[in-house]
Amino acid sequence: MPKKELGKLRVIPLGGLNEIGKNLTVLEYGDDILMIDCGLGFPDEDMLGIDLVIPDLSYLEANAHKIRGIVLTHGHEDHIGAIPYCLRQINPPIFGTNLTLGIIKNKLSEHILPHEPSLHCVHAGETVRLGAFSVEFIHVNHSIADACALSITTPVGVVVHSGDFKLDVTPIDGEMMNLTRLGEIGKKGVLLLMCESTNAERPGHTPSEKKVGKSLEYIFTANPEKRIVIATFSSNVHRVQQIINVSARHGRKVAITGRSMLNIVGAAVELGYMTVPEGVLIDVSEIKRYKSEQITLITTGSQGEPMSALYRMAFGDHAQITLGSQDLVVLSSSAIPGNEKLVGKIINELSKNGVSVLHDAVVEVHVSGHACQEELKLLQALIKPKYLMPVHGEYRHLAANRELALDLGMDDRDIFISDIGKVLEIDRKGAKFAGTVPAGNVLVDGLGVGDVGNIVLRDRRHLAQDGLIVVVASIDADARLLLSAPDIVSRGFVYVREAEELMEEIRTLAEQTIIDCLERQKTIDRMALKTCIKDTLSKYLYAKTKRKPMVLPVIMNL
Amino acid sequence: MPKKELGKLRVIPLGGLNEIGKNLTVLEYGDDILMIDCGLGFPDEDMLGIDLVIPDLSYLEANAHKIRGIVLTHGHEDHIGAIPYCLRQINPPIFGTNLTLGIIKNKLSEHILPHEPSLHCVHAGETVRLGAFSVEFIHVNHSIADACALSITTPVGVVVHSGDFKLDVTPIDGEMMNLTRLGEIGKKGVLLLMCESTNAERPGHTPSEKKVGKSLEYIFTANPEKRIVIATFSSNVHRVQQIINVSARHGRKVAITGRSMLNIVGAAVELGYMTVPEGVLIDVSEIKRYKSEQITLITTGSQGEPMSALYRMAFGDHAQITLGSQDLVVLSSSAIPGNEKLVGKIINELSKNGVSVLHDAVVEVHVSGHACQEELKLLQALIKPKYLMPVHGEYRHLAANRELALDLGMDDRDIFISDIGKVLEIDRKGAKFAGTVPAGNVLVDGLGVGDVGNIVLRDRRHLAQDGLIVVVASIDADARLLLSAPDIVSRGFVYVREAEELMEEIRTLAEQTIIDCLERQKTIDRMALKTCIKDTLSKYLYAKTKRKPMVLPVIMNL
Repeated sequence: MPKKELGKLRVIPLGGLNEIGKNLTVLEYGDDILMIDCGLGFPDEDMLGIDLVIPDLSYLEANAHKIRGIVLTHGHEDHIGAIPYCLRQINPPIFGTNLTLGIIKNKLSEHILPHEPSLHCVHAGETVRLGAFSVEFIHVNHSIADACALSITTPVGVVVHSGDFKLDVTPIDGEMMNLTRLGEIGKKGVLLLMCESTNAERPGHTPSEKKVGKSLEYIFTANPEKRIVIATFSSNVHRVQQIINVSARHGRKVAITGRSMLNIVGAAVELGYMTVPEGVLIDVSEIKRYKSEQITLITTGSQGEPMSALYRMAFGDHAQITLGSQDLVVLSSSAIPGNEKLVGKIINELSKNGVSVLHDAVVEVHVSGHACQEELKLLQALIKPKYLMPVHGEYRHLAANRELALDLGMDDRDIFISDIGKVLEIDRKGAKFAGTVPAGNVLVDGLGVGDVGNIVLRDRRHLAQDGLIVVVASIDADARLLLSAPDIVSRGFVYVREAEELMEEIRTLAEQTIIDCLERQKTIDRMALKTCIKDTLSKYLYAKTKRKPMVLPVIMNL
Repeated sequence: MPKKELGKLRVIPLGGLNEIGKNLTVLEYGDDILMIDCGLGFPDEDMLGIDLVIPDLSYLEANAHKIRGIVLTHGHEDHIGAIPYCLRQINPPIFGTNLTLGIIKNKLSEHILPHEPSLHCVHAGETVRLGAFSVEFIHVNHSIADACALSITTPVGVVVHSGDFKLDVTPIDGEMMNLTRLGEIGKKGVLLLMCESTNAERPGHTPSEKKVGKSLEYIFTANPEKRIVIATFSSNVHRVQQIINVSARHGRKVAITGRSMLNIVGAAVELGYMTVPEGVLIDVSEIKRYKSEQITLITTGSQGEPMSALYRMAFGDHAQITLGSQDLVVLSSSAIPGNEKLVGKIINELSKNGVSVLHDAVVEVHVSGHACQEELKLLQALIKPKYLMPVHGEYRHLAANRELALDLGMDDRDIFISDIGKVLEIDRKGAKFAGTVPAGNVLVDGLGVGDVGNIVLRDRRHLAQDGLIVVVASIDADARLLLSAPDIVSRGFVYVREAEELMEEIRTLAEQTIIDCLERQKTIDRMALKTCIKDTLSKYLYAKTKRKPMVLPVIMNL
């Protein structure tokens, strides 16, 4: 009997390439599938009315019996947010670090699931065996605690996935990214490195989280008389820790507001990721008992989210907190692309109320959680992979990451810029793209998952642009007569009370169009009649107003 | 007879405060009104379907007989863009510098106006007498040539309006902002300074336009083999001049594409604001005759505008130009807030096609046209105004500008943060706010000016979020019977073909609701019937889907 032929490793990104967010990568070998992360994305501005976006999971649903587990790099929404939706269809065991699982449990408590989820805690340094794969979790620095890179041993070689990372030589928890272990793995030989690309266009190094601590120290010292309100990402446990530390040093009590901030701080304290000195934390309801200069408030809303605690405070809509000239608001964050105007709206409103505002354009109160060029090159140089696949980013970021690898001397043919659904096959002979599997966006709108697609979105965009005109006509099926003048209803087109003349013109034109069409037709063709009304009115309205409202004819046969 | 009492000067911003764009300020003294600029704004993201925004001009229309003229600081859209709309109602003489008027003429040629506009060319240094006002034009630096500040002598004192400005010690046209003249005016005593605030949050100085020239020189030297395509703002005549100069030095021909770029370069060359060496400019149709390395292409589209030349090139939709790996695209611009994603879309698409892309995050290929803090303070220190009104900016910018004045030692009571429509009255005794005049946004949508207001926009937003459901029912007025099962038409709500069950439920519920309501009513009340259908269906759909489509009942009485 011949020696057993080695199979092929299939690497299939189902999200996170040519987009920001919704990270999910599949490794497949024979009858074994491993999922790396399972994140959500936020809707583009043209996805009107959509709440969030998850990956198309149909390939995984079709191969559910092969899935050995989901391994998670860290607890950010773009890496874990699709898990509740995924668990409706399939129920593989989930492996992640302590904090990551703490955040997931919190999230899952808001969903009704068909099965009890199977969650398994892994510490950095540990290895999990899942079918043909053996997955080692390796500590990295990031803007959330307990983040990991993964080293996955497969029958054809080792695959390293960077997760989201930065190199912080002076991290808040004292644990630098485990470069030594990554170097050891690199030395033994790595087949494929999947390397994140978020900041691949940015030269240099990302500053340490400690830099923010120094800025906060300066701000607290310079504003001893103010109440200090700091908005930041709730998942940035180290940032929150630094705010608590500086507050305690300055003799301030700390109150926390905003649901997700309360949730995550609760989990982080409980799991030991955050240390709060005795007596520092107080409830928001207690702040009235203290003077302004004795209080720090930590809040959500750093992206200008309209329902967040900071938004409600700014617009005088928060039950317990009113901001005024005694307050200093610090936005310890940077606006995610697309949120600039929302953040600006809050800054304006706060300024109008006499609140002082500091943000990252003025003071260094935020640092990125992602590696810049020098850190990316360092990781690539340590891992020395045979093949490289840049992941996590739009095309520009993936391409910039490739440039770094070329600088390091890699051969362009060994760098694979892939796409979601695109299969990279690797065996002893080499690596090549080999077909695709279904992949794309599944849109979540309210309770609906996947019931809004391109046609619905196209209609929403059309309605959003110029509104609509409904033309309702009753015709007598036998006599083929229009029974009464058609009803015209419009929304989002013009202010009808000031456009009575135009509405009357539309009614008259619709009536004439229907009569003409009925006369011309030999048999009643409702479809043709509708098209005729639609075309005639659209043309008329465009000539008259240069607008294209949706024209919606409804024909009642009585 | 007593000596004639001096009247009051009224300063009325009608645009440009608490917003970006649509700059228009009115000075009024007795029977004389002077308009400073007349700009347009771009719609916020919640102004769905709106093309552009102009100021509410009703105060000016009501006082048309008082208007002595419009004085223009420079030729940017946010300072001149509303002129064609203004001229439909009123026809005052317009005063501006040569290039400003050149741009206006171009713009007006696209509009049909009731009167011949009255345009008057003024050179920096000249003074125009308009009723009670005498207006001196003073040269400043800005991202368009021929920009001016204004010194306006009124019966109660001198008002200086900064226009948009920066201080460029090494400007491309050799003319530094006329600090000397501004200092002289300041020495004689200035009553009020209206000072722009765009960059009032930014410390330091804005770099010179020459800095961009140096970056371009470096880029051209480093890429001798590439075709270089540079996108920039068409109105930045000096930027275009620098691109032409560096191209000529490197022996390249320059072709220009994009309608607004061709228009403005044409005007600038004709009016002598741009000098093109003999034989350098070629038509786009001629570029095929040259090798890549012999060509520079200057194009519109630096904001990612979907109809622009660069967008069409990126997406393979440009008639004459296809971009590929032989091309280097330089975005010599920065994304205006709100345009980041559009610009990103172009960068991604270019990268996918193998085009190299450089932008302002990577190389210093753009500088701002607006003064930073040190320049703003310098102007304020030279003018030494009795009163200050920060203009041009959102509240945060106006407030930041006030901080600079406070740093310079001004009294808070002499600084007036105003708003559009708010009247500041100044006489010998002092300055105080005194009531308001109508002001706000007039929305332009297609050919309609002002016919889309809050109700129409609210409907568009509602439709955009969750679409609509039209319920059409015919009832017999006498018998008070529903004549047939109601028709349900939906758009933008769910994909109907995959939601037949839900649509059937809606139909049944609507039918039952109508029957119940008709039975309950003593007399037919169509309004009550519609409200009943709307409420019942909305409630049902929200419980079922957590969405709120617009429910539009149409009741036909036959």
